[in-house]
Amino acid sequence: MMPFEPSERTTVRRRPERAVYERDVIAAILDEAVVCHVGCVVDGRVVVLPTIHARVEDRLYLHGAVGNRTLRAARDGAELCVTVTLLDGLVLARSAFHHSVNYRSVVIMGRAMEVRDEAEKRLALRAVVEHVVPGRSVDAREPNEAELAGTLVVRLPIDEASAKVRSGPPVDDEEDYGLPVWAGVLPLMIRTAEPIADPRLMARVPLPAYVAGYAR
Amino acid sequence: MMPFEPSERTTVRRRPERAVYERDVIAAILDEAVVCHVGCVVDGRVVVLPTIHARVEDRLYLHGAVGNRTLRAARDGAELCVTVTLLDGLVLARSAFHHSVNYRSVVIMGRAMEVRDEAEKRLALRAVVEHVVPGRSVDAREPNEAELAGTLVVRLPIDEASAKVRSGPPVDDEEDYGLPVWAGVLPLMIRTAEPIADPRLMARVPLPAYVAGYAR
Repeated sequence: MMPFEPSERTTVRRRPERAVYERDVIAAILDEAVVCHVGCVVDGRVVVLPTIHARVEDRLYLHGAVGNRTLRAARDGAELCVTVTLLDGLVLARSAFHHSVNYRSVVIMGRAMEVRDEAEKRLALRAVVEHVVPGRSVDAREPNEAELAGTLVVRLPIDEASAKVRSGPPVDDEEDYGLPVWAGVLPLMIRTAEPIADPRLMARVPLPAYVAGYAR
Repeated sequence: MMPFEPSERTTVRRRPERAVYERDVIAAILDEAVVCHVGCVVDGRVVVLPTIHARVEDRLYLHGAVGNRTLRAARDGAELCVTVTLLDGLVLARSAFHHSVNYRSVVIMGRAMEVRDEAEKRLALRAVVEHVVPGRSVDAREPNEAELAGTLVVRLPIDEASAKVRSGPPVDDEEDYGLPVWAGVLPLMIRTAEPIADPRLMARVPLPAYVAGYAR
């Protein structure tokens, strides 16, 4: 795929050597992150809210209740900045200054449009369920008309987007490598614990494979 | 401690039953999250960037290179919205509509001030290291004058703040409880993997206990 042409806004300024504009890298980071953080100016003030997203090709879908003020502002044309961050490890350098984290992040900027077409709205909501738990959408009851009417879905084109990635060991000042201080990376990852069945779960409903084998 | 008085801006509007304004709950969420997402209007446009924070009492410290545009905007008086999110589990309901996540999030709004006092600046940077790896600051080489001069630190008062927490099993529509669909919570947590020593680590430097026993 063609990499993104960095725009004035998505050009990574700090640490440009960490910037990535490849579409498949950006897509993979968006898909791996369970939630994103949506920034938007609402009533003249900046708000940043966590929410679940879903990517379908070059489109990012966000959803919420029709009363959601951030989504309503987005629907009404407010600019968005959507950021996802995956934390891969803690980077312990010999100097406090060079401590860092290994991470993969994506920033998407742009304006969203409300999804009014019912077929696309259903597709988007199915994509959200699949984004969180791949395989789940075939089992879950589909949204009914009232639920669909109560849900606002917006589509943000993934056009102005950039990723930033740090990986690997710490980078210390040359004169600090002789210090007798442990240095390295402590990898972090998301793990699941034992699934907790709903107390009201019907008898003899087995645990699905997509839950038992879940990995992010 | 006194809970926060929710302001016009920090009053949780969606799902107010999930809102928490207790200072110790807010502090615990801020301390557990490795990174926050800082929203700010920079050159007329909203940006959301992940960064490492540190809380000291009722103050949140953010830091970065002196050239960091978001931090410079913050220093120059731009309003900030700082959000942290801890993901505790995936909530699988019988209906697609009631799928959710269990989470704990905090939103802080306000204006930051640059930390110019050297003692407070050093305290803030030490707090950042301790925030990421408790115990580390005694081993890491302290910032020198050049590093200190190259770092911009801002202090955001934790005044206008609110938390939002969802926990527990899915909540389905009454008529859906009879569906033969598995429902429950898949807990998520951050885990460490085996520490990776820096290839240039000096011989006979032992792995510190704060790395070996690290838990978030």
